[in-house]
Amino acid sequence: MANVKAAIPKGTRDFGPVVMIRRNYIFDTIKKVFKKYGYQEIQTPTMENLDTLTGKYGDEGDQLIFKIINSGDYFSKAEGKENITSKSLLPLISEKALRYDLTVPFARYVVMHQNEITSPFKRFQIQPVWRADRPQKGRYREFYQCDADVVGSDSLLNEAEFICIYDEALSALGLQDFTIKINNRKILSGIAELIGKPDMIVDMTVAIDKLDKIGLDGVVKELLDKGFEEKDISILKPVILLSGNNQEKLNSLKTVLKNSEIGLNGVAEIEKIFSYLSNFSLQKAKVELDLTLARGLNYYTGCIFEVKTNEAAMGSIGGGGRYDDLTGMFGKDGLTGVGISFGADRIYDVLEELNLFPSTQTESTKVLICVFGEAEEAFAIPILNQLRLADINAELFPFGAKMKKQMQYANDKAIPYVVIIGGDEMQSGLLSLKNMESGEQVKVSVDDLINRLT
Amino acid sequence: MANVKAAIPKGTRDFGPVVMIRRNYIFDTIKKVFKKYGYQEIQTPTMENLDTLTGKYGDEGDQLIFKIINSGDYFSKAEGKENITSKSLLPLISEKALRYDLTVPFARYVVMHQNEITSPFKRFQIQPVWRADRPQKGRYREFYQCDADVVGSDSLLNEAEFICIYDEALSALGLQDFTIKINNRKILSGIAELIGKPDMIVDMTVAIDKLDKIGLDGVVKELLDKGFEEKDISILKPVILLSGNNQEKLNSLKTVLKNSEIGLNGVAEIEKIFSYLSNFSLQKAKVELDLTLARGLNYYTGCIFEVKTNEAAMGSIGGGGRYDDLTGMFGKDGLTGVGISFGADRIYDVLEELNLFPSTQTESTKVLICVFGEAEEAFAIPILNQLRLADINAELFPFGAKMKKQMQYANDKAIPYVVIIGGDEMQSGLLSLKNMESGEQVKVSVDDLINRLT
Repeated sequence: MANVKAAIPKGTRDFGPVVMIRRNYIFDTIKKVFKKYGYQEIQTPTMENLDTLTGKYGDEGDQLIFKIINSGDYFSKAEGKENITSKSLLPLISEKALRYDLTVPFARYVVMHQNEITSPFKRFQIQPVWRADRPQKGRYREFYQCDADVVGSDSLLNEAEFICIYDEALSALGLQDFTIKINNRKILSGIAELIGKPDMIVDMTVAIDKLDKIGLDGVVKELLDKGFEEKDISILKPVILLSGNNQEKLNSLKTVLKNSEIGLNGVAEIEKIFSYLSNFSLQKAKVELDLTLARGLNYYTGCIFEVKTNEAAMGSIGGGGRYDDLTGMFGKDGLTGVGISFGADRIYDVLEELNLFPSTQTESTKVLICVFGEAEEAFAIPILNQLRLADINAELFPFGAKMKKQMQYANDKAIPYVVIIGGDEMQSGLLSLKNMESGEQVKVSVDDLINRLT
Repeated sequence: MANVKAAIPKGTRDFGPVVMIRRNYIFDTIKKVFKKYGYQEIQTPTMENLDTLTGKYGDEGDQLIFKIINSGDYFSKAEGKENITSKSLLPLISEKALRYDLTVPFARYVVMHQNEITSPFKRFQIQPVWRADRPQKGRYREFYQCDADVVGSDSLLNEAEFICIYDEALSALGLQDFTIKINNRKILSGIAELIGKPDMIVDMTVAIDKLDKIGLDGVVKELLDKGFEEKDISILKPVILLSGNNQEKLNSLKTVLKNSEIGLNGVAEIEKIFSYLSNFSLQKAKVELDLTLARGLNYYTGCIFEVKTNEAAMGSIGGGGRYDDLTGMFGKDGLTGVGISFGADRIYDVLEELNLFPSTQTESTKVLICVFGEAEEAFAIPILNQLRLADINAELFPFGAKMKKQMQYANDKAIPYVVIIGGDEMQSGLLSLKNMESGEQVKVSVDDLINRLT
């Protein structure tokens, strides 16, 4: 067979040993916190039926779904057809696709397994998803999502606990200064109602959302461009520029929104969440009511979250919110839910930038036995066995390689200790133990070796 | 948008909370052992370039690879073409496919990253693979493989250590009685040489391999059908029926194969592996030389392994062997390697049948706080906070549900303890703690509660 260039599709990645240890560290830390709060892991298949995914992510999203060709003689249904186009051919040759996110498969799971599920159902899921986006720095065609959601409970305790989960997980990962921003779709609806343009809530919030980037003048210009009037702006301005601590902001909002039932409802929800939080011990997180936060507004119906680190220049490292109709698309209406997501790739980059990854040595081989020849290898095998019986991660470099290569191997794998066995060691029974970091070398008995390494 | 039936593609599975805990238990146990022996985890992308996979698994295998449709206007290259067939269209509309196993991606990885890799490179990989096989009981279109391989070392210590890895991992999973069968392609070559039909080694071993299923008479019939003669059979019979312990078998083979250099070479390799093993403490595994073992013979060049449990009726739960040219297909020749695989789905079924899974309670919520109303919830929140500060996995059922439903929730999630808070408890400060297994109920202070649960 012809030689093929060793390459991978653009936008995909291999994860080598060090990266894997670090990724597992992030996921394991987050998982532990999810479990602490009663969330249970599930996994769904990589492939979903195409009709499960189509129409859930808008026209643009549909384009970005990776479709799988039917197996066997897949073209037979299209045979003889005229004027075939990419679009008309698709349903004839493809029935399955790669999952695009974890939310739609979760909704599908909830409906499909509704008789086995205990409500409220608290699940987490950490799996890759695929999008045929143009690859660029930090944007991949295969990447992991890390989601927790609860469905079947409208209690705001869930929202408060998600803030605790963010706090506990990100603090455990070593972040010292991060902000969990919170907003509520109902407050935004109240404001749109107030200026008499409830239908323009999306245009309004999209503009407000840009305050950080384009400043107040920019936001006002965009609002005017979108059809808002000067009188609307005069009502909106104080809302956009709302300042003070969370309580002061809530107090101002209560005044501004006093004639909007839905707006006051949103304010009350935020107050209830803050009340829950006052009884929980947050570690490092700052929680901030931010009315310019407007993520996924077509989708979320209640509280919205977004997490930003203040220690590194990085977009959002997490987000989520409450939605009122997750499973309607699969014929089960009225199931309320709330969920969050951790941006694992970005968290990875932040931990790397801040040098927060723990040493990988605890994961890997603790000691490498290096031997000068075959006789030394035979002498060393029972020692290797004893080390492993003592549950010490140990390797022996098979005889035949130069000592320099063996030491290089220990170095490359960040193995902290090396035992060197030559003729002297065989005769005396005392082994040479070298600390690879300090360079210090001592003679030790086998028992002594085991004691030092456990 | 129209309602869609909640369903998944045939041959794929959802993994619910209990199954996930059990699958993770299997993978985590095996991972720990891999790491103990110096194997490091890597992951490769779900999608590989189609030309990386094509031609590696035979014509039948190529048919079973799931292909992905190019994104965008994928049909444009085929536009106007006549006599389109499934085969001629494929290269025009697809460049990527789902990985079919972990071995080819590993070979691709080794060549692509050869300048970063320390030799010998010991890697493990636990990821799903996809095959468009007809689904049936126990055979899925998406399933996990769990592989460890070392490349760049011809030492038989690697083979011996893989036997130790099987022993340690399967013993840790609670198996009491299993056999690791070992054979060597070189011994089989020697035998084929001996009867003067070296080219018929595959026909010969395929027939011998069926001894368990069709008996000696069946094997002889198949050999004759394939073109072997009576005189060949008379040489083969003693080899097929070779009995005694491993040493006795080896001694007989040395006599039978005394004129075959390659055959004696294979015998010597097995002896060397047994010599290594005599210095390692195996726990539960029996190791057995089995000349009828003939897996993947077109692929393996040295030792071959297969693992069978003796406690349940189940096919092989693991296997592997040495190959001399893993990376030739990507232009890097002469890299020797040896690897093994754990059959995770079958191991799952065995552990389930033998009731060897540990209780899932250690993973999940330890205590559920149940409240009668809103005042009780407010009273309970600080207690929930204290439990979590003590690192106890704890949940509170948000107020509003009947006590029966709350208890049902604890039951469904196998939560071992429930705290019930009503008016009495609020007044006295003493909480009702119920042991869900024994039904026993006691009154405890918060400190007492935390002490009991940690």
